[in-house]
Amino acid sequence: MTRPDGDHGVPSGRVRARELGVVVGGLPTGPLNAITDVEGVLVGHTTLDDGADLHTGVTAIVPEQLFATWRLPAAVEVGNGYGKLVGSTQIDELGVLESPIVLTGTLSVYRAADALLSYVMRLRPDGLSFNCVAGETNDGFLSDIRRRPITERHVLDALEGAASGLPGEGCVGAGTGTTALGFKAGIGTSSRRLVIEGVPVTAGALVQANFGGVLTVQGVPMPAAELVPGAGGAEPPGNSCMIVIATDAPLDARRLGRLARRAIFAMGRVGASYSNGSGDYAIAFSTAPASSPLLPDETLSPLFTAVMDAVEEALLNSLFKATTTTGQGHTGHAVPYDRLLRERP
Amino acid sequence: MTRPDGDHGVPSGRVRARELGVVVGGLPTGPLNAITDVEGVLVGHTTLDDGADLHTGVTAIVPEQLFATWRLPAAVEVGNGYGKLVGSTQIDELGVLESPIVLTGTLSVYRAADALLSYVMRLRPDGLSFNCVAGETNDGFLSDIRRRPITERHVLDALEGAASGLPGEGCVGAGTGTTALGFKAGIGTSSRRLVIEGVPVTAGALVQANFGGVLTVQGVPMPAAELVPGAGGAEPPGNSCMIVIATDAPLDARRLGRLARRAIFAMGRVGASYSNGSGDYAIAFSTAPASSPLLPDETLSPLFTAVMDAVEEALLNSLFKATTTTGQGHTGHAVPYDRLLRERP
Amino acid sequence: MTRPDGDHGVPSGRVRARELGVVVGGLPTGPLNAITDVEGVLVGHTTLDDGADLHTGVTAIVPEQLFATWRLPAAVEVGNGYGKLVGSTQIDELGVLESPIVLTGTLSVYRAADALLSYVMRLRPDGLSFNCVAGETNDGFLSDIRRRPITERHVLDALEGAASGLPGEGCVGAGTGTTALGFKAGIGTSSRRLVIEGVPVTAGALVQANFGGVLTVQGVPMPAAELVPGAGGAEPPGNSCMIVIATDAPLDARRLGRLARRAIFAMGRVGASYSNGSGDYAIAFSTAPASSPLLPDETLSPLFTAVMDAVEEALLNSLFKATTTTGQGHTGHAVPYDRLLRERP
Amino acid sequence: MTRPDGDHGVPSGRVRARELGVVVGGLPTGPLNAITDVEGVLVGHTTLDDGADLHTGVTAIVPEQLFATWRLPAAVEVGNGYGKLVGSTQIDELGVLESPIVLTGTLSVYRAADALLSYVMRLRPDGLSFNCVAGETNDGFLSDIRRRPITERHVLDALEGAASGLPGEGCVGAGTGTTALGFKAGIGTSSRRLVIEGVPVTAGALVQANFGGVLTVQGVPMPAAELVPGAGGAEPPGNSCMIVIATDAPLDARRLGRLARRAIFAMGRVGASYSNGSGDYAIAFSTAPASSPLLPDETLSPLFTAVMDAVEEALLNSLFKATTTTGQGHTGHAVPYDRLLRERP
Repeated sequence: MTRPDGDHGVPSGRVRARELGVVVGGLPTGPLNAITDVEGVLVGHTTLDDGADLHTGVTAIVPEQLFATWRLPAAVEVGNGYGKLVGSTQIDELGVLESPIVLTGTLSVYRAADALLSYVMRLRPDGLSFNCVAGETNDGFLSDIRRRPITERHVLDALEGAASGLPGEGCVGAGTGTTALGFKAGIGTSSRRLVIEGVPVTAGALVQANFGGVLTVQGVPMPAAELVPGAGGAEPPGNSCMIVIATDAPLDARRLGRLARRAIFAMGRVGASYSNGSGDYAIAFSTAPASSPLLPDETLSPLFTAVMDAVEEALLNSLFKATTTTGQGHTGHAVPYDRLLRERP
Repeated sequence: MTRPDGDHGVPSGRVRARELGVVVGGLPTGPLNAITDVEGVLVGHTTLDDGADLHTGVTAIVPEQLFATWRLPAAVEVGNGYGKLVGSTQIDELGVLESPIVLTGTLSVYRAADALLSYVMRLRPDGLSFNCVAGETNDGFLSDIRRRPITERHVLDALEGAASGLPGEGCVGAGTGTTALGFKAGIGTSSRRLVIEGVPVTAGALVQANFGGVLTVQGVPMPAAELVPGAGGAEPPGNSCMIVIATDAPLDARRLGRLARRAIFAMGRVGASYSNGSGDYAIAFSTAPASSPLLPDETLSPLFTAVMDAVEEALLNSLFKATTTTGQGHTGHAVPYDRLLRERP
Repeated sequence: MTRPDGDHGVPSGRVRARELGVVVGGLPTGPLNAITDVEGVLVGHTTLDDGADLHTGVTAIVPEQLFATWRLPAAVEVGNGYGKLVGSTQIDELGVLESPIVLTGTLSVYRAADALLSYVMRLRPDGLSFNCVAGETNDGFLSDIRRRPITERHVLDALEGAASGLPGEGCVGAGTGTTALGFKAGIGTSSRRLVIEGVPVTAGALVQANFGGVLTVQGVPMPAAELVPGAGGAEPPGNSCMIVIATDAPLDARRLGRLARRAIFAMGRVGASYSNGSGDYAIAFSTAPASSPLLPDETLSPLFTAVMDAVEEALLNSLFKATTTTGQGHTGHAVPYDRLLRERP
Repeated sequence: MTRPDGDHGVPSGRVRARELGVVVGGLPTGPLNAITDVEGVLVGHTTLDDGADLHTGVTAIVPEQLFATWRLPAAVEVGNGYGKLVGSTQIDELGVLESPIVLTGTLSVYRAADALLSYVMRLRPDGLSFNCVAGETNDGFLSDIRRRPITERHVLDALEGAASGLPGEGCVGAGTGTTALGFKAGIGTSSRRLVIEGVPVTAGALVQANFGGVLTVQGVPMPAAELVPGAGGAEPPGNSCMIVIATDAPLDARRLGRLARRAIFAMGRVGASYSNGSGDYAIAFSTAPASSPLLPDETLSPLFTAVMDAVEEALLNSLFKATTTTGQGHTGHAVPYDRLLRERP
């Protein structure tokens, strides 16, 4: 079964953090509370879920502004480099994103990058060099990762199906088979709005959550084993977290790198253990026109807060929206948030 | 008034986090719950406090093992490089610490480095090249920083007075004039013990806390303005945090860099905002004999946890032990922890 | 026409730098003057050359020691990050190489990485996470790069055909379609031997040369336009240089990073212009048993010299062994070394 | 004897590379062929030379544009981090230079930074935080470095005496006691002019040369031992090279970092061995108004060439202008350039 967009097709019945009264920080969100609140940023998912041992997929983040110049200011921050992110050194050198961003499972990342190349080459028929960005986390705990099921078609579907509107969250796209903090997790997103030096700014986060630690909701630890008998026992291999930050704030690569670093810092707020095997990466890009004057560094602290809040809430959404999933002899339990909220002080 | 070691001389009457029942994480501490639990690591303070506009000082961390080889494996992690840390590029290149570590106020950091050089030169009469490590935070909110009051003698006192035992915490040494999270802060320390691959390991943290955000104790935010009328209003300039991690675990510079990164991550647990102006640095070093086989990376996750727990508790100690201090027309209020604990859920 | 190893099959009639009396530096070479002088290091090529517009291929560097532990100490140095190297962030974090190294043309690099993954997965049937290393340069000046002709079979052929002995040089494997310094270039290799602290050490370099500048032989510039009428006119896009350094010296990742940096420095000796569009990367790895005591940094300067000399000579070999090649409406002229040497002072 | 500016006071009788017919590259120089060709960039020297065992000093590079904003775009590149450069982490984070740059001998670098702080504080009476940049090389081969003779007055003299015009070269300021490539070296400077995208651009280099290797003039190696009987025997400790690049090209920190890296690469052209003990650093800054549109990366290759050519020629000037100096029982011989040029092919 391949769903181009899990949320729109198969509603999970589960709700986002904010619908449960879990509000992170004091800044307002955008209208969708999603990365797609950043004008022009589209998200597409391809979900592979056979109800048995295949729970994987592709998520594409497509900033439409890219199609004009093929260069958006961008930066990568490596929180813990136990991961196979494709495309980072050229972003480091030139400070620009030259392709949409594709996320998938670890052993499909090179194929995803290659499919992304096909996509970009089609749009740029004269080009001879393209830097494609593909990230991954290891969904082998619930999915038969060695099967490498992602095809070029799956990736193109996610890219071509990318749309505005609220993206699917939870068990969808590249989050179909991921687990975090002892529970089933997946894709999550959130956004914040603020005004800096008179300029209205939106920052959005999208996460592919797949890491260890103890779930912490607004400061309250919720150990999986206490909430779900039997949960959190076996430890998934190669936990990781891919974070994508989009903003319409006029920032260059250096400043975006500072945002990306804060995205990594925010993982700690939901209880990430930042363990050895986790590939924790953040990519931040700006959709602002190249002609916009850059925001001075000394005005960025509120934006740092916005990014951290959005990442924290996106991570909670990735968990709250996910549904219990079984595969490879393991079960990723959905967060029992009713109980969780009941037991909150 | 210059006190070589505030704690031993003038007890503040205030207690550490653990004495209040605030226990971070599940790992045991060392006997002192201090960086000095790492065998051979000494700490010394020189405190300058004239009861008026001078609240500054020097803190020295002296690993005795250094005196044998003058090279301990070490790494620096820059969380936010708005700081004047002296000595980092040579540590990056060679992966070793060649001097004790000295902490002080921003505008005295070069003098402190120069005084540290005097100290090292005296011990190494044949040397022609020494890389001295001095860190700083800006204590100009409460202290007349432009006076640059630190002399070579102050630094030598801290170095020569460095001792085992529980170091002074709170308003002492390089923490005499610092504030954090809206309250008076200062120096704090903590340690953890664990066994990795059959090897008993101690990791200790010492912090010079001086950064913004909302105090968060075990997940519960405690905004300064709510706890202390009038607190947290004016924002001190150049907030920062210096973190020193010592361990007897056999680790090389690369692995120590991974520890140092986690030290930065732990700042978020007490509510750090990681703002633009904060110079957040962690230095980690190992006192293990060079002949010890290195711990494999895949065994390090528990040590990462130990470091994060020790840093979190050291930061709380830096706040809980500090006393209300007035200077430069500002007041840094001691955390009213009675009220804080009473209001805790 | 696909040749698994160009040199053994189709001798080019051209000779190496040393056979022409061009001797770089004072250190002796290994018996083959090749990266394969490092015990256990194998090289394989797959060459695609249809005599028309296809001049590309794959080169694999396979250290046999990898098969025992799947972790060899390694480091990547980015001289100029305008390139698509796959696999660098995990090497940065963990300091180890977990796969052979595959080199190819830019738009085939993701497929090459994916094929390398197939190869490694077959050898490690229980693994769920593998970091594959694939480098590239842009051979689109002479080859129809947008055709993306490299298949999994081509990559597996290079890997499975990797052998000891003198590797093919010039227009072979990943160097089939590359040009450098205004001339046809390709693959080159060289090695050096020395004794450090009583330990005999071999260091070998293999280069995929494809960059701009003015050919400089032992300090004498040899502008292409002067040696070959019409040469060096059109500028190939996306010039780059991939350098692989192998050594049996016991070194950790930090020290290997220092070697890799010197490899980049050595490009200047043959006249590299280090231009904006060049993706200049060096990867260094050590085949020494993990139990060997590491060489101290202060003993490494002679090894730095060895690496720089080997890279310089490997670059010259990549040029001197290459033969005139035409494709895509361009011609890469072989260096007319007879004339070059005649005109040398 | 303290000379504020060696060249203006005591002409050495020696000439610059270009006066000897040694012309590096094809680009024109500025009118002075010096870093001071970049409008507003001033250089000052304080020279300490007692004719016996004291041969050291201070060199200050003062961009007047700094005084308007106290922030010029800047970047540091570490070629080999065996050095004590003060101020790099904040430049890395914020991408700006906030002080003039001061160069001196290794064991005086912290005092020089402190004196520079005094200078900046006087000009910015309201500031509470300043990032001072001071670099060093080890002149202990010819000078009694452990005496630490540099005082605040010496540093202020260099800063306050900084002037436009051709700066002193050779044995002056921070180059008074340095040696390079087996010969007496010192300070050298050079510049290049070019037009990028219609914008006239000047780039200037100033070097403090103090490193090992074999002197290479336009590709021809000139081993010290062959040119001067007895030269190049004893090896000075802690060789290093500090390179300062100034340009009026509108560049941000990321682009300036690319320039700085090329400055390090250029050391190889004069024969640098890039040895273990060398602290090789380049700092690049831009004096262009903040409002100028930045030059695109793809236009920078000619500027990279300009920087490399200027650094190469500045290094030659640092050697050619230096005079034989004896101290600490060692002699640094001036390059016998008559003989050198006679023997050139």
